[in-house]
Amino acid sequence: MSDDLQKALAGVRAEIDGIDAELLNLLNQRARCAQKVGEIKAEHGEAGHIYRPEREAQVLRRLQDANPGPLPNEGITFFFREVMSACLSLEQPLGVAFLGPLGTFSESAATKHFGHAARLLPQASIDDVFREVESAHAHYAVVPVENSTEGAVGRTMDLLLGSSLKICGEVVLRIHQNLLSNETDLSKITKVYSHAQSLAQCHEWLNRVLPNAQRISVGSNAQAAQKASEEAGVAAIAGEAAATRYSLPRLAENIEDEPNNTTRFLILGKHDAGPSGRDKTSLIMSAPNRTGALYELLLPFSHTGVSLSRLESRPARHALWEYVFYVDIDGHRDDPTVKAALDELAGRAAYLKILGSYPVAVY
Amino acid sequence: MSDDLQKALAGVRAEIDGIDAELLNLLNQRARCAQKVGEIKAEHGEAGHIYRPEREAQVLRRLQDANPGPLPNEGITFFFREVMSACLSLEQPLGVAFLGPLGTFSESAATKHFGHAARLLPQASIDDVFREVESAHAHYAVVPVENSTEGAVGRTMDLLLGSSLKICGEVVLRIHQNLLSNETDLSKITKVYSHAQSLAQCHEWLNRVLPNAQRISVGSNAQAAQKASEEAGVAAIAGEAAATRYSLPRLAENIEDEPNNTTRFLILGKHDAGPSGRDKTSLIMSAPNRTGALYELLLPFSHTGVSLSRLESRPARHALWEYVFYVDIDGHRDDPTVKAALDELAGRAAYLKILGSYPVAVY
Repeated sequence: MSDDLQKALAGVRAEIDGIDAELLNLLNQRARCAQKVGEIKAEHGEAGHIYRPEREAQVLRRLQDANPGPLPNEGITFFFREVMSACLSLEQPLGVAFLGPLGTFSESAATKHFGHAARLLPQASIDDVFREVESAHAHYAVVPVENSTEGAVGRTMDLLLGSSLKICGEVVLRIHQNLLSNETDLSKITKVYSHAQSLAQCHEWLNRVLPNAQRISVGSNAQAAQKASEEAGVAAIAGEAAATRYSLPRLAENIEDEPNNTTRFLILGKHDAGPSGRDKTSLIMSAPNRTGALYELLLPFSHTGVSLSRLESRPARHALWEYVFYVDIDGHRDDPTVKAALDELAGRAAYLKILGSYPVAVY
Repeated sequence: MSDDLQKALAGVRAEIDGIDAELLNLLNQRARCAQKVGEIKAEHGEAGHIYRPEREAQVLRRLQDANPGPLPNEGITFFFREVMSACLSLEQPLGVAFLGPLGTFSESAATKHFGHAARLLPQASIDDVFREVESAHAHYAVVPVENSTEGAVGRTMDLLLGSSLKICGEVVLRIHQNLLSNETDLSKITKVYSHAQSLAQCHEWLNRVLPNAQRISVGSNAQAAQKASEEAGVAAIAGEAAATRYSLPRLAENIEDEPNNTTRFLILGKHDAGPSGRDKTSLIMSAPNRTGALYELLLPFSHTGVSLSRLESRPARHALWEYVFYVDIDGHRDDPTVKAALDELAGRAAYLKILGSYPVAVY
């Protein structure tokens, strides 16, 4: 490196060193504040309630709004989650149960929400994930609840019906599709394997970039990746997890036509969250099996002007009702309009269970 | 939550909010400085050399030395790595090849060194990892080179002999052993499966905690974990990766008698690193096959007072020499004493290849 360059860099590096020293002190000052919060709570007999999802959401939203750049909001959110995670774990490291093994989207969701200082507890099934928190082996659970292309995760929804756990947060993960192949040249690809849904998701991209390649649908994207790892001239459409599992290079990334392919996860705990200013409330309701029953159940929301962001029906496993309805509404159950809607609903529904109020996913 | 508690918390939270606002501005100020560094380098025709391993090591060491707590040095190092990773990726996101799949120790090493803003490129073999960087598909490679219990990673050492890549860094990962079982009570464990080496590593712990359990050695810890996932009354000794792969709860953690079970990884790139103040130099040397040859090769180090931190012999695959020696020495090849030793060595060795000088692992 030239002396000229060295000299030019020295000034900027001194500036960076000064900033780092300030960052170091502020991070520790913040950690001491977090310790103080823990002490105050302990004095008031609330030592168990260290983690406040609503407070965390507020902090992150405020920082995103205030972020002047050049660091993107995603990076800023990542840091501050990690800062809060580290500060929290000085008090009480959080145990977080999720559907294992490692390298799944559930693990990404858990880390995205709780940061790297949390203790991850992978489980063999969604049932086990619920059980870990119910039996107090873990503080929180992370479970998938719906995918924007594949729809609801039935097992999670069925377990929510019977569980005592509350929803205290949600995480939305964007799911990307990639073209995976050991070939290094697109012109060598003669066959593309994937799940029919994934092929459909990348339809336009395939028309444009690989118009002559044969498209073959298989049972899963992982199966497609396996084929691509074994045969020449073959590519698979699959996500990050399959790419890493079969060590397949990504010949093209983010090839989905619709860029909003997401999976939504719920955070479950013993309590739901306080109001954060931008919240959702989830509930399960049912009515006797007669004409107009669902319509009547929706009236309270219409009366009070509360918006439904999701309505999903599932066959009931009791004899009493034919269907149960899973509903997400905008707002916190402590908001006056939401409270009014829920009070009215309680009078009409044969069955009503409030799963919890929680902050809308921060990013 | 009581009003009293709310009031007590309000003051601390206001303080935290103030700190967060300062952190936000400093992080972005730092990112702007990093952009300035990029611009200065581009003006001097050095745009390709954005990542400076020696500078990163210096920054992290200084921050560790200055850290007043309560945040542990490990947490501080994690943050600042991530800050540097994010700042760097504003300029040029680094592509990092490693031995896949995801969830391996190699991936942990790559993320530990390059942060989450780096682009991870999992490969099917160590050969492929080298090739990705040699062919400029990736900027850097992360390869395992030795394990404190299992010894050298032969394939990496053989490839280093023929490759044009330089070592520009090292990462040391601590490897922990856990007792994995679906049983929730230690008294239910009648058999413990593991690799013989792992059983030996946890010998004292087993004597103390499970004196009556039968110890059965199997081919690998993963195989042991599989047995534990299938049979009642069985536990396995294995690492994190096997725990997550077989979704086995950890009945006990960090049970290794010797707490220093580590794996060392090398970071490879097109260049090695400049001096950071605490460096290592790795080299490969060989001598004609005659009595006293190794002794003669070691003389230059003894003459100059340069310490060897590692010496490993491997059978040569050429006919000319019987053995090649892999040597790590303390110091940078630009340090006068190291330079003198290497100059003297060049005159004595039949074969000498300097693999690179690089900062000693930061944590």
